[in-house]
Amino acid sequence: MSNKLTEISELGEFGLIKRLTEDIVLNNPSTIKGVGDDCAVMHYNSDKEILMSTDLLVEGIHFDLTYVPLKHLGYKSAVVNFSDLYAMNAVPRQITVSLAISKRFAVEHIEQLYEGIKLACEIYGVDLVGGDTTSSKAGLIISITCIGDASAEKIAYRSGAKESDLICVSGDLGAAYMGLQLLEREKIASAGQSDFEPQFQGKEYLVERQLKPEARKDIIAELDKLNIVPTSMIDISDGLSSELMHICAQSKVGCRIYEDRIPIDYQTAVMAEELGMNLVTAALNGGEDYELLFTVPLHMHEQVEKIPGIKIIGHITSEELGLAMITRDGAEIELKAQGWNPLKSA
Amino acid sequence: MSNKLTEISELGEFGLIKRLTEDIVLNNPSTIKGVGDDCAVMHYNSDKEILMSTDLLVEGIHFDLTYVPLKHLGYKSAVVNFSDLYAMNAVPRQITVSLAISKRFAVEHIEQLYEGIKLACEIYGVDLVGGDTTSSKAGLIISITCIGDASAEKIAYRSGAKESDLICVSGDLGAAYMGLQLLEREKIASAGQSDFEPQFQGKEYLVERQLKPEARKDIIAELDKLNIVPTSMIDISDGLSSELMHICAQSKVGCRIYEDRIPIDYQTAVMAEELGMNLVTAALNGGEDYELLFTVPLHMHEQVEKIPGIKIIGHITSEELGLAMITRDGAEIELKAQGWNPLKSA
Repeated sequence: MSNKLTEISELGEFGLIKRLTEDIVLNNPSTIKGVGDDCAVMHYNSDKEILMSTDLLVEGIHFDLTYVPLKHLGYKSAVVNFSDLYAMNAVPRQITVSLAISKRFAVEHIEQLYEGIKLACEIYGVDLVGGDTTSSKAGLIISITCIGDASAEKIAYRSGAKESDLICVSGDLGAAYMGLQLLEREKIASAGQSDFEPQFQGKEYLVERQLKPEARKDIIAELDKLNIVPTSMIDISDGLSSELMHICAQSKVGCRIYEDRIPIDYQTAVMAEELGMNLVTAALNGGEDYELLFTVPLHMHEQVEKIPGIKIIGHITSEELGLAMITRDGAEIELKAQGWNPLKSA
Repeated sequence: MSNKLTEISELGEFGLIKRLTEDIVLNNPSTIKGVGDDCAVMHYNSDKEILMSTDLLVEGIHFDLTYVPLKHLGYKSAVVNFSDLYAMNAVPRQITVSLAISKRFAVEHIEQLYEGIKLACEIYGVDLVGGDTTSSKAGLIISITCIGDASAEKIAYRSGAKESDLICVSGDLGAAYMGLQLLEREKIASAGQSDFEPQFQGKEYLVERQLKPEARKDIIAELDKLNIVPTSMIDISDGLSSELMHICAQSKVGCRIYEDRIPIDYQTAVMAEELGMNLVTAALNGGEDYELLFTVPLHMHEQVEKIPGIKIIGHITSEELGLAMITRDGAEIELKAQGWNPLKSA
């Protein structure tokens, strides 16, 4: 952080918006007009459907600035929205960013946040086209809305899973949750120590998964290349169990997944061991992985297996059979959603 | 308010969303899929452009629940977003609603807020298609994003005003600001009194303009019927002066408006007198009127004058002449933006 901090009141709302947005370059042909009028203007062709998703992130609920750098926070705030578009097999194209900012923040802090948002936009090919900037009495609030497009026949809803479909997961699960545990542990250990050095050696992957998650644009591109349209899809933001329940409820089906097939990284396993936590519970219920969970017809088995980073973890059953995991010793355990739920735990 | 209050934690996030959204009916042909998946899905024809606007409202900054009923707050939150679409000569079609809610609120409170949002959607023909619901540490936060459409050739940007264009305003100005002054006065007067009766007789219009503003859908329809496309347009949310400055800056022009032509309601004048405030200052700088300010070519003089509720208040000049108001006694006063600016005053 720079030593010279500028109070936001020096610039005012319009001055701040100008400072944050004057270097924005619009890259998408679908963007006609970005920041600077009552609305952003876009043009989409009618052979595509338009998809829209929105997220609201509140300081003290969704993020802790003690250990989350503002640039990372900006990056993550944008990426989690892109992830919602990919989760429907769509491509994100534009976002609006609204911020409510308390007096504690200087212009330079908000610039760092914006740097992260702009970096995410650049990497994912999304245009920042508008937003709202105002003040808050306590803390930072970030609201991002993302729109994008997909051909009608390619959209993957949560409701299309069919009996005997294969259940697939990208990447690995539980690492972001373990990263959060690690950051919380180091935060407590650092309390009152000015020269504290957090211990992240050998756990860099966990920290990165928590602080700088990526959305699976690559998987969507790969599915498109192989001409695979998932029968259903969702992104894993609240934990595998919770997302499986959404798909099964909306598709009116059940499922069986296999404990030994759940993809887990070595660092996640080491951390769970260290904390004395059940590893599979963490992988099933830890949130913020932003991996894709999707189903494909059984006959696509070989095709899906070819995609790097995709693992088949089970299959869809009839609704009567419910949702269960088969453990390593062959026992059947009913799946329950214990994912992160800010309103339940509040 | 009902006596039986349900804690939000009893329902959790998914239960609350279900309760709030299960009776939503989608009416727009452009809405394909509403609440319930990772994204809302829409279909627009390519002969239209898509417009998007977003607003973030924070308790204690934008609204005071001491005197703002939750249903009114919901209604207003939606309407101010619709107003941004009308301000570009577009039609709002869909909104997403994100809420962050502190423990102080019960399910029934949020239902009241939603009732107001749904009522606004019904009246303005807009579909509620998605959102995000989470918790907050302090107070209520409302983030609404609205999308809609317009033909490319009908969109009115802020940048199109030309020298000699007429400056037009719908409705009257300053009443919402006076309504706010009145509500604040009664709030102070009521402090500590349980049986306090606020004095609103003869000032009902001011209270209504503050608590239940309307967006000028009717004016947009009228302009369309008469085939008038404004050369520039903006909605008056921060005060006439501030909005004129936006239009003049982006159009690279100046303007002259006439004090005696600024439309002001009788109740606004009475209230300004009572409070010892300058009436014209209130009309120029008081925000939240949500009237439309637009420019049309000089030759449309007669056509525009026919529209009920439209007043021509001045004309566009060359940039060098700056922005000024001609007072009743013929003096020229430079216009300055003193509109409501939450980040400047914070």
